[in-house]
Amino acid sequence: MKIVIDAMGGDHAPEATVQGAVLAAKEWNDTEIVLVGDEAKINPLLGADRPSGITVIHASEVIGSDDEPVKAVRRKKDASMVVAGRMLREGQADAMISAGNTGALMTTGLLVVGRMEGIERPALAPMIPTIDDRGMLALDLGANMDAKPEHLAQYALMGSLYRQKVHGIDQPRVGLLNVGTEEGKGNELTKHTFPLLKELPIHFVGNVESREVLMGGCDVLVCDGFAGNIMLKTLEGTAAGIFSLLKEQFSSSLKSKLAAAMLMPELRALKGKLDYKEHGGAPLLGLSRLVVKSHGSADANAIKNAVRQARLAISNQLVESISKEISGRVE
Amino acid sequence: MKIVIDAMGGDHAPEATVQGAVLAAKEWNDTEIVLVGDEAKINPLLGADRPSGITVIHASEVIGSDDEPVKAVRRKKDASMVVAGRMLREGQADAMISAGNTGALMTTGLLVVGRMEGIERPALAPMIPTIDDRGMLALDLGANMDAKPEHLAQYALMGSLYRQKVHGIDQPRVGLLNVGTEEGKGNELTKHTFPLLKELPIHFVGNVESREVLMGGCDVLVCDGFAGNIMLKTLEGTAAGIFSLLKEQFSSSLKSKLAAAMLMPELRALKGKLDYKEHGGAPLLGLSRLVVKSHGSADANAIKNAVRQARLAISNQLVESISKEISGRVE
Repeated sequence: MKIVIDAMGGDHAPEATVQGAVLAAKEWNDTEIVLVGDEAKINPLLGADRPSGITVIHASEVIGSDDEPVKAVRRKKDASMVVAGRMLREGQADAMISAGNTGALMTTGLLVVGRMEGIERPALAPMIPTIDDRGMLALDLGANMDAKPEHLAQYALMGSLYRQKVHGIDQPRVGLLNVGTEEGKGNELTKHTFPLLKELPIHFVGNVESREVLMGGCDVLVCDGFAGNIMLKTLEGTAAGIFSLLKEQFSSSLKSKLAAAMLMPELRALKGKLDYKEHGGAPLLGLSRLVVKSHGSADANAIKNAVRQARLAISNQLVESISKEISGRVE
Repeated sequence: MKIVIDAMGGDHAPEATVQGAVLAAKEWNDTEIVLVGDEAKINPLLGADRPSGITVIHASEVIGSDDEPVKAVRRKKDASMVVAGRMLREGQADAMISAGNTGALMTTGLLVVGRMEGIERPALAPMIPTIDDRGMLALDLGANMDAKPEHLAQYALMGSLYRQKVHGIDQPRVGLLNVGTEEGKGNELTKHTFPLLKELPIHFVGNVESREVLMGGCDVLVCDGFAGNIMLKTLEGTAAGIFSLLKEQFSSSLKSKLAAAMLMPELRALKGKLDYKEHGGAPLLGLSRLVVKSHGSADANAIKNAVRQARLAISNQLVESISKEISGRVE
């Protein structure tokens, strides 16, 4: 199988992407990795002992984190991200990974890679950390701000298949993000989505309140991009806020400083547990081929993990399974 | 001024409501308090040294926390909450306080007390705790799941006036809950609301991301009931989850147990800081008179604080100010 990596995307590119590619190529010798980006920067990083599974394709431009997504994708035709997307569309690779500008990657997915037939809205599906360490795949987390009930039903199907194919969960529990657990709760969108989800060939567990997300009430959480973003950013902001308050409180006296120093390993472990950046790349589901978004701050290990995810998705025919499921419902 | 209290509403009623009324009557002798509920239960609690400012009105029924709101308000015509609402509508009181069933109280507000002219959707506006201890008035937090831009504009006006009149903030900073800070971000609702807020006679500070809420980026946060509920419950759930994880981590070894014991006062202070139940009652804004929702677990002090809020709102003519502002815009 062949995986193309946007070597110039992310805060630590191209060092992290190149090192991640090397780690992956060493671990899986059935996987060809194509690094797309500035040759003059990538080749020196690969050095002399470049693994045989890695090739480099030159791209002269880069989409930056501040670039306006649609404009950048349209104008920078030789940007590493766009070139990688084109290779994917043309069948020169089975999956693509980028840690670059999220909006630009979603635009590349839509305009360059292309939607899967029958899918109106692709969805971004990151893993959200949960206390039970199982994690929760949440979608859509920001690819589309407004959604219709039919879109949410497609998200449910795609998310369920992803957790089966990539995480090996037999019957993923699918929940609908809502303001109460009873059927009939919510806004117009969730009220109309609930009956659709009941009819799907998934293990629908009903409404899930945002209060329960961290506890891990389901394996797949379905929501529109706006509500999902509000939830994820509240989670991040609250965790960050509490840790900064803890720090302040714990340095209020000598006694508390000493005690806090003794607890440092536990506090660090807890912080790691809640860091959603640690939980791998987020697939963009509903495209004609697999695109994985790595976190902007991805290091070499995170890139290697994204390759691992892509490999599992490819070998378990994720995209084909989604396509089959969707086309069976589209007529 | 005269404030009517639903004596039977809340987990600790009627003990907490009666004691709270006694505390308030002792503190403010310009305030008449009417307790509505079961005389046979209330009178013994008032005992012999009942303050002169308190009267009791008998009501034979109670709306429970599990009652279906609309049905309960329609059928239980002699419920303490409904009787209190009727007194408010008829001008026998200036404000009403209840710690009872939230849905039933909103229904009582709509069906019994009645909307203010020009207001389509009243809003529930609790205070959300923030790290800087100023707190943030967020509305709507669940009175209406779906909202239009015009409703959000009315929420902004009402929230701004509330913080001026009740909290004495000169130019309350009003923010719009959104997924990014730039104008043009968000879903259809927030995109159309932004330009409306710019035109209002308020200090509009633009979009506020949910990540920033705990940090206290504004004094009034405007949102639709669905997104607001998702935000508030994520905040609560994340805080609760982190505290339970801390507890678990801190009891993992003798060393950590000892250290955690030393930090107990700091941890308790932090937990109190994030407890939104501590931050007073939530006004239901946009009704013809003021209704304040106390938390279901309100104790006597919380009831007394709700009386304090109601007194400030009455003496600073909150409802009249909102009415004037709204009618000036509804031609």
